[in-house]
Amino acid sequence: MAAGLLVVLSGPSGVGKGTVCRQLLALRPSLQLSVSLTTRQPRPEEKSGCDYEFAAPSHFQKLISEDAFLEWAVVYGHYYGTLGKRVEENLLQGTDLLLEIDVQGALQIRRRLAEAVLIFLAPPSMEALRERIAGRGTEDAVRISRRLKAAQQELAAYQLYDYLVVNSRVEDAAAAIDAIIAAEKCRVSRGARPPASGGEQR
Amino acid sequence: MAAGLLVVLSGPSGVGKGTVCRQLLALRPSLQLSVSLTTRQPRPEEKSGCDYEFAAPSHFQKLISEDAFLEWAVVYGHYYGTLGKRVEENLLQGTDLLLEIDVQGALQIRRRLAEAVLIFLAPPSMEALRERIAGRGTEDAVRISRRLKAAQQELAAYQLYDYLVVNSRVEDAAAAIDAIIAAEKCRVSRGARPPASGGEQR
Repeated sequence: MAAGLLVVLSGPSGVGKGTVCRQLLALRPSLQLSVSLTTRQPRPEEKSGCDYEFAAPSHFQKLISEDAFLEWAVVYGHYYGTLGKRVEENLLQGTDLLLEIDVQGALQIRRRLAEAVLIFLAPPSMEALRERIAGRGTEDAVRISRRLKAAQQELAAYQLYDYLVVNSRVEDAAAAIDAIIAAEKCRVSRGARPPASGGEQR
Repeated sequence: MAAGLLVVLSGPSGVGKGTVCRQLLALRPSLQLSVSLTTRQPRPEEKSGCDYEFAAPSHFQKLISEDAFLEWAVVYGHYYGTLGKRVEENLLQGTDLLLEIDVQGALQIRRRLAEAVLIFLAPPSMEALRERIAGRGTEDAVRISRRLKAAQQELAAYQLYDYLVVNSRVEDAAAAIDAIIAAEKCRVSRGARPPASGGEQR
């Protein structure tokens, strides 16, 4: 059985990662969303175990001390992390995993799991990004300005990723990521081989 | 303007490259089939300039002496080749090109144009391949046997390619190649970058 693919999706705050992820999961039902652990407060629409799992800072720090995270980071004062054991189990079972994480986390993944597929989601323009951050309505002016500045810095990190997908239309962005996953599964360097060659190799 | 992609498709004799190519060109009309030059006789259904261009051996040899070919090979006693200038002009204009060539030709392309995308089309089984070669009805028993032996050797060459696509169903194989092309266009190493970053980089 072929090992599962670890797909890492990052992008600046407000680029629409969540919406694109939901669309992608609808396109490709075999893909499982890897649920991150966080110490931030749930947003009104969020359910624990679905978008994130929520943990107290003390519990999170205990897991860090046990080296339980494949990656973890502090963003805007909150911890976010991915439990390594859960990812490994899924990949070994042949399950493809989607991780929506920030740039710091993605680069930790790259170092630990070179075979991860790193995809950067970019806005069609900085203006579009500003509108989306402001339009969310959950942020005051100071926070919007802070997020935009952070987004500009985050955007430069795309160069460290394997793929860049522009989120002009959610459907197109999700289809592009779906194509990237399909293509990666055909890569000879990932062990794709002709059925006719049977058990000759590895 | 982004440079066009050179997509090279190979696979053993009888695997169905022609059928998959036609389906792929229907899926992705912007993709242009690169027409090879050959000294073999046209098959009844073939038109010059569409499937192949046909040339006399003396003319082909003159072009070889002028180093006009990106790749050329002798297969079953006939010359096949791709004119380099035509490929370069298309890629510079941003046109994606599909080249259906044999393993020898593909490896010449790899050496000359490292950025070419090499895709190997494999049969779902050797038995399926035998049926397809025999079913074509244009070959006698000796030729079928010779083609099958060659196909087995050709199959091992998949390891030199970037991608392997199994031709179980023509539609699925064409869709997989279409996804590979879409994915390659998102590769950061090919120059994909956020529209928002404008003219900052190359």
